[in-house]
Amino acid sequence: MNDRNRRLVLAQRPSAMIDGSTVRMEEVPIPTPGHGQALVRVRYLSIDPTIRTWMNDAAGYLPPIALGEVIRSVGIGEVIASNTDTFAVGDSVFGPTGWQDYTLAGEGASGLQILPPGIDPPTALNIFGITGMTAYFGLIDVGRVRDGDTVVVSGAAGATGSVVGQIAAIKGAGKVVGIAGTNEKCAWLVDELGFDAAINYASDDVKGRLREACPTGIDLYFDNVGGTLLDVCLGQLAMRGRVVLCGAISTYNDAQRAVGPSNYRNLITRRGRMEGFIILDYADRFAEAQLEMATWVADGRIKHREHVVEGLERAPEALNLLFTGGNTGKVLVRI
Amino acid sequence: MNDRNRRLVLAQRPSAMIDGSTVRMEEVPIPTPGHGQALVRVRYLSIDPTIRTWMNDAAGYLPPIALGEVIRSVGIGEVIASNTDTFAVGDSVFGPTGWQDYTLAGEGASGLQILPPGIDPPTALNIFGITGMTAYFGLIDVGRVRDGDTVVVSGAAGATGSVVGQIAAIKGAGKVVGIAGTNEKCAWLVDELGFDAAINYASDDVKGRLREACPTGIDLYFDNVGGTLLDVCLGQLAMRGRVVLCGAISTYNDAQRAVGPSNYRNLITRRGRMEGFIILDYADRFAEAQLEMATWVADGRIKHREHVVEGLERAPEALNLLFTGGNTGKVLVRI
Repeated sequence: MNDRNRRLVLAQRPSAMIDGSTVRMEEVPIPTPGHGQALVRVRYLSIDPTIRTWMNDAAGYLPPIALGEVIRSVGIGEVIASNTDTFAVGDSVFGPTGWQDYTLAGEGASGLQILPPGIDPPTALNIFGITGMTAYFGLIDVGRVRDGDTVVVSGAAGATGSVVGQIAAIKGAGKVVGIAGTNEKCAWLVDELGFDAAINYASDDVKGRLREACPTGIDLYFDNVGGTLLDVCLGQLAMRGRVVLCGAISTYNDAQRAVGPSNYRNLITRRGRMEGFIILDYADRFAEAQLEMATWVADGRIKHREHVVEGLERAPEALNLLFTGGNTGKVLVRI
Repeated sequence: MNDRNRRLVLAQRPSAMIDGSTVRMEEVPIPTPGHGQALVRVRYLSIDPTIRTWMNDAAGYLPPIALGEVIRSVGIGEVIASNTDTFAVGDSVFGPTGWQDYTLAGEGASGLQILPPGIDPPTALNIFGITGMTAYFGLIDVGRVRDGDTVVVSGAAGATGSVVGQIAAIKGAGKVVGIAGTNEKCAWLVDELGFDAAINYASDDVKGRLREACPTGIDLYFDNVGGTLLDVCLGQLAMRGRVVLCGAISTYNDAQRAVGPSNYRNLITRRGRMEGFIILDYADRFAEAQLEMATWVADGRIKHREHVVEGLERAPEALNLLFTGGNTGKVLVRI
């Protein structure tokens, strides 16, 4: 530990994968909590694909990160000094910490909230955090998963995808098929998480394997990746099939315009629906979802895995894991 | 008139625009109505873009037209002989007549039904037929048009598009913008049908004009054409915008794979929905829609225009008008 606040700021907008020139480590004084504020030592960062989209100079659902600004990120920290009754020293807090050692909580500071006791930080950032919430509301509210559905998930060994598949099974899906990038990931999906089938997009004949695994077509495709897989799944959509657009990680590093899905026309003939969402819109319903998820985790019906990278300075490398497929489960940075 | 039944059958599957080699005129004996059947002289054919899709050797929402089979089409005819109490000589009937002079109605024959008296055939095939029903249910049920919506319609001077824009205004849309292919069509939309603005896609800067006309973005895009315009409109979608996929006429003649809409990713950031439909699914609700449409037509709130082509032999030419943009309003063939 240092008596300075190390922070990673956006140095240059990336045109593809982020690299050494994208972020810059700075050391600044540790912030001083004012009246109504608390000082937080950041312990864990949640590494999410959306961070990459905020680095582009393009309006999305949030403004881009400005050049020189700390990289925006959710995390968990510990209160180490407090000038407010809201936070006591020793409290765990979660929320928008940014990629840095210290931040402030409380009045006029970032919207950090107290983490209920009894939840370990990695699980909090995975299952009970944005990741788990995205899986829950995307599948249930946007996708309206139904009894007997054939559900296909891309990015299936990732944080969101692995939870989506398990919730689908709990909610009565007839078949859950995951698409992932290595045989090890595929084995994890089937052997440990109970997926009915898993397809390795890097080595399998995806169209053929999907046709075998989904002989009546795809009722619900939960798309984390975009690109070719979205097009393939649209091509095999069942009548009244639904496509939940959660992300498009295969395209986030593209400097060029992404290729659009030609098979979108199947949405007409199959009476299909393709819908996007942003999990922040569901914030006022997180509690209900977290309660239900907690029972599933306690029952062993939802298993989860975290891939922890050690050190703030390795946060950029951790982010790149999402794009190289180097992770299984949720990527976190421990500071 | 002839004592033979002239009919147009599919001679060869087209790879692009249909031409002289696509259909073949045959003369066969006039069919003899059996017990429970009536003989119908076909008077009008409804010329719809979907006919072109049935000529391809690809499964759609209906099987392709087989080689040698009469071109599938909705039409209106007159009963000229009857062996059933269901149909009397002189009755007007509508339904799947096909591109031919005569067909049979009744038991075991095509599903022709009696046209209620007082509706002239062109209006019946336009406003009260598939065209009007498509506009009505597509906009209201699929698009869920809302008070104050900015609605954009492509193929706006076509049969469906021109009605969509007028229903949108009736249903409280804040702004209705049509996209069409000539200045004359644009003038018709604004001056006669009451559209708030019209954009000529062939000569205007579509992106710029759309941005001017829709400063808060597009709440509802009713897409008849696909292709570039779909991508442009996705790029200007408002928050929670909806895209109704009715057709993709700009792509039906493509032998190559259509280009997909890259801007589909806006459906994520803008929480948008893109949904297709096939009007046949709404058949059991046509009566309610026809009743409402009848009052709007009677009040002068919905205006309509028919483009009538004379002669069965010109049906292929009439179909091509839809693709060259040679029509304003509904294309019909009078036999």
